[in-house]
Amino acid sequence: MYNNTTLAKSCTMVVFQRFQRLQTLYFASLRLKPHTCNVTVHKTITAGRGHLRGAHEAAPTRRPFSRVTPDDINFFTRLLPGRTVTDPDVLESCNMDWLKSTKGSSEVLLRPKTTEEVSQILRYCNERNLAVSPQGGNTGLVGGSVPVFDEIILSTALMNQVLTFDSISGILTCQAGCVLENLSQYVEQHDFIMPLDLGAKGSCHIGGNVSTNAGGLRLLRYGSLRGTVLGLEVVLADGRVVDCLAKLRKDNTGYDVKQLFIGSEGTLGVITAVSILCPRKPKSVNVAFLGCSSFQKLLETFQICRGMLGEILSAFEFLDTACMSLVENHLRLSNPIAESPFYIVIETAGSSPSHDEEKLHKFLERVMASSLVQDGTVATEETKIKALWSVRERITEALRHDGYTYKYDISLPLEKIYDLVTDMRAHLGSQAKNVVGYGHVGDGNLHLNITSPAGDAALLEAIEPYVYEWTRKWQGSISAEHGLGLKKRNYIYYSKSQEAVRLMADFKTMLDPKGILNPYKTLPDNVR
Amino acid sequence: MYNNTTLAKSCTMVVFQRFQRLQTLYFASLRLKPHTCNVTVHKTITAGRGHLRGAHEAAPTRRPFSRVTPDDINFFTRLLPGRTVTDPDVLESCNMDWLKSTKGSSEVLLRPKTTEEVSQILRYCNERNLAVSPQGGNTGLVGGSVPVFDEIILSTALMNQVLTFDSISGILTCQAGCVLENLSQYVEQHDFIMPLDLGAKGSCHIGGNVSTNAGGLRLLRYGSLRGTVLGLEVVLADGRVVDCLAKLRKDNTGYDVKQLFIGSEGTLGVITAVSILCPRKPKSVNVAFLGCSSFQKLLETFQICRGMLGEILSAFEFLDTACMSLVENHLRLSNPIAESPFYIVIETAGSSPSHDEEKLHKFLERVMASSLVQDGTVATEETKIKALWSVRERITEALRHDGYTYKYDISLPLEKIYDLVTDMRAHLGSQAKNVVGYGHVGDGNLHLNITSPAGDAALLEAIEPYVYEWTRKWQGSISAEHGLGLKKRNYIYYSKSQEAVRLMADFKTMLDPKGILNPYKTLPDNVR
Repeated sequence: MYNNTTLAKSCTMVVFQRFQRLQTLYFASLRLKPHTCNVTVHKTITAGRGHLRGAHEAAPTRRPFSRVTPDDINFFTRLLPGRTVTDPDVLESCNMDWLKSTKGSSEVLLRPKTTEEVSQILRYCNERNLAVSPQGGNTGLVGGSVPVFDEIILSTALMNQVLTFDSISGILTCQAGCVLENLSQYVEQHDFIMPLDLGAKGSCHIGGNVSTNAGGLRLLRYGSLRGTVLGLEVVLADGRVVDCLAKLRKDNTGYDVKQLFIGSEGTLGVITAVSILCPRKPKSVNVAFLGCSSFQKLLETFQICRGMLGEILSAFEFLDTACMSLVENHLRLSNPIAESPFYIVIETAGSSPSHDEEKLHKFLERVMASSLVQDGTVATEETKIKALWSVRERITEALRHDGYTYKYDISLPLEKIYDLVTDMRAHLGSQAKNVVGYGHVGDGNLHLNITSPAGDAALLEAIEPYVYEWTRKWQGSISAEHGLGLKKRNYIYYSKSQEAVRLMADFKTMLDPKGILNPYKTLPDNVR
Repeated sequence: MYNNTTLAKSCTMVVFQRFQRLQTLYFASLRLKPHTCNVTVHKTITAGRGHLRGAHEAAPTRRPFSRVTPDDINFFTRLLPGRTVTDPDVLESCNMDWLKSTKGSSEVLLRPKTTEEVSQILRYCNERNLAVSPQGGNTGLVGGSVPVFDEIILSTALMNQVLTFDSISGILTCQAGCVLENLSQYVEQHDFIMPLDLGAKGSCHIGGNVSTNAGGLRLLRYGSLRGTVLGLEVVLADGRVVDCLAKLRKDNTGYDVKQLFIGSEGTLGVITAVSILCPRKPKSVNVAFLGCSSFQKLLETFQICRGMLGEILSAFEFLDTACMSLVENHLRLSNPIAESPFYIVIETAGSSPSHDEEKLHKFLERVMASSLVQDGTVATEETKIKALWSVRERITEALRHDGYTYKYDISLPLEKIYDLVTDMRAHLGSQAKNVVGYGHVGDGNLHLNITSPAGDAALLEAIEPYVYEWTRKWQGSISAEHGLGLKKRNYIYYSKSQEAVRLMADFKTMLDPKGILNPYKTLPDNVR
């Protein structure tokens, strides 16, 4: 079965023994669980940390919205008895983002259960000129999911019902506050999977995923939410409910209005329900964890992989050795293979275990025989697959333990994606604690992260605008999947034309003329 | 290899002999080539046909746009020397749609080559309040691609240049007037394919495909254009050029403005360039043409097919026996298998010929052994594949020969899609010449077509609103992929909520306040 040439035979055989052992990996099966805005009080989070708001956020000025009065609280309490929260301890955690880098000072949290309640809240807020910060699982990384000042927090946490599931078509409709992992478990019972998967799955809400156009680990295979989201129900700033909750794969009756709300980060409307197309659960899943001696070899491995694994390739992720050190040191995960400058996580998902295994083994044989890959392990069993994935998925968590993190989420032409890390490392020298790179090779998406013991203005000045100019030079995007939120809003022109931003501002004015929805986010300060 | 049980053995073997013979099919390899708006004069098309505009189009009233003056012609001639066409013979064909059911009376055709020329044309027309009808390959089926009155025809035919192609990522950027089939041939040289394919490929322009959010034969596998179109360049009604021509798989920097232009049928802006993600060319393609004795069996076959062919399934199309008679009678194509009430065209596309063949044969064995399929043939060679596909692809053409055609393009829950044909046939009785159904089973998309010797008001009254009410009852869409154009604009409320239509009208007002772009299309008359 294996066409081992004499030349490569001995080397290949040794490595294959490693593959075929399917090493007993005992990684913690813990998932990344960012804190959610539940009523539970997170005592560990305290206000007033010196580095809570990085200087790169270019703190905006509070706009002249009304302030919440006792009359307002009375209105909300009548509308949402027991679900209008003013307890400072509870508010503390909802005011703070998961990275602990952005903190608002909202004094009221609303927890509606129905679209009608959301509609009444927004109608009231719009009339009263009260600003609103919509919040899902609060797992965003650009300060988009928490208030900046005293905006009312509108949480989708109690809007967590599955509405319908069609087990013939795989079309799921649900409320916006359903947690992604819960939805995954739900549809898996019916032999389907969610078309997206990401490290924050244990906390993030589907409404937040759609509002931020989340990418994640399966985009390479199942495409973006712009294709898989079939319908939305959205409440506009003035309380109008727009029902575009189609459950059809195809519908060309007029403009696809819902698209504007996908990825608009809650600034144009509040998504209250989602209809999404779920792929069939694959009968066979394999994960290979491989080591490469250079990024060039990693890219060559990717090209061969696309050709040889073709339609069963469902993820091609990478991390550098610095990321591996972080998860080893901060999370006590073990490196499943020999140390390498670069690591690859390849996932295959298909309908025939024997075919998939054969394709994968032929591919591995090829890349090892040609010394593109220097070590590796393969898992086919669910626990071991989860363990391998956790190394990749928990990097964000490890970074949070490493210190204050400057996060960049960059799209670049594939052949350039790691050059930015190398250049940045050289550019910063000893100023940074760590400069690490990981991400989605298949999508040309690099996560560049720079840590320092605390927020550091001089370091920030060295990073920005260097990183943005570098990205623009290669016609990249300064936000591949995280969005702009509060932190990146003023850098939009590095990736968008003046005319496009002007159109965005026109849409905002049209849909939310008072600007009450998630102010200070997404749009740059000069065009609000 | 074949697990023929004793019970099914004899039957299965007989049918397999048919499969394995790979019958010598000698279908004409002709593609559907709707007439294009070239300078060639189509003498066969004459004005004044009694049934040119069906009553169901609810003819609009001309809006108070300016009329084209000699000064206007002088301006255009200076801007586009030799490409400002006023020859009535040439205009004749561009005023008429491919179905010969809609005809305008434009007196000027403009053929720009560059975005800058389009910008100057629109700026001028907007200032002068001259209406404009953008036109690509003029292959649309809802009267969206021709003028209704004297709108200036703005053709993309000369904007036919490929701009860039990245053979690593498969990202193609090109001008809007590139013909889909030419693009297919271009990217195939680089080992990629276009993510969409449709019968009109020989004439339709990529800009028109995007403007109408064309679906077609590959949507099941590669998803909709909303996911595969990565960037657009659009000229707005006032001549502003919006450059969103990103060449990145992921970009979350602000609202995805380009989405609004996808599927808006040229009513919000003129698409001048497209960036699109092309999938790798599969190493192995198989097509199976099968016969089923009932639609229920066809649906069961589809369910089994999705499970067993999984990731290699790239199309699952159907036609009924009435469609087969039309292509046999009007186009002289031969039925490749024994006569059946229903026919299926299944295409697989994968990276391993042996794996794909094994999956396909196991599937065929299963559906034949269980008598879901009663006859069939398989093709693996390109000429034979094209011959099998032509039966499905040329139905539209055959219908045009059958008489005046009432066309309906309906999305429905999968289990309901053929009931509409059966019910309509019973409902119309002998009023119709033919009532036929075909379409994309994988997408829940039925093409229902009803023919009569000539336009027939009584027949139309029997069809509509019956067909729309039937569709609404099952939460379907009255236009799955064809769009609304002129013909369906006033039926939008059968599939869209009042609030959604109101938002559409707001977008139109914002982007084209004078309403000069493709007037009388897409939006219903009551909200223009």
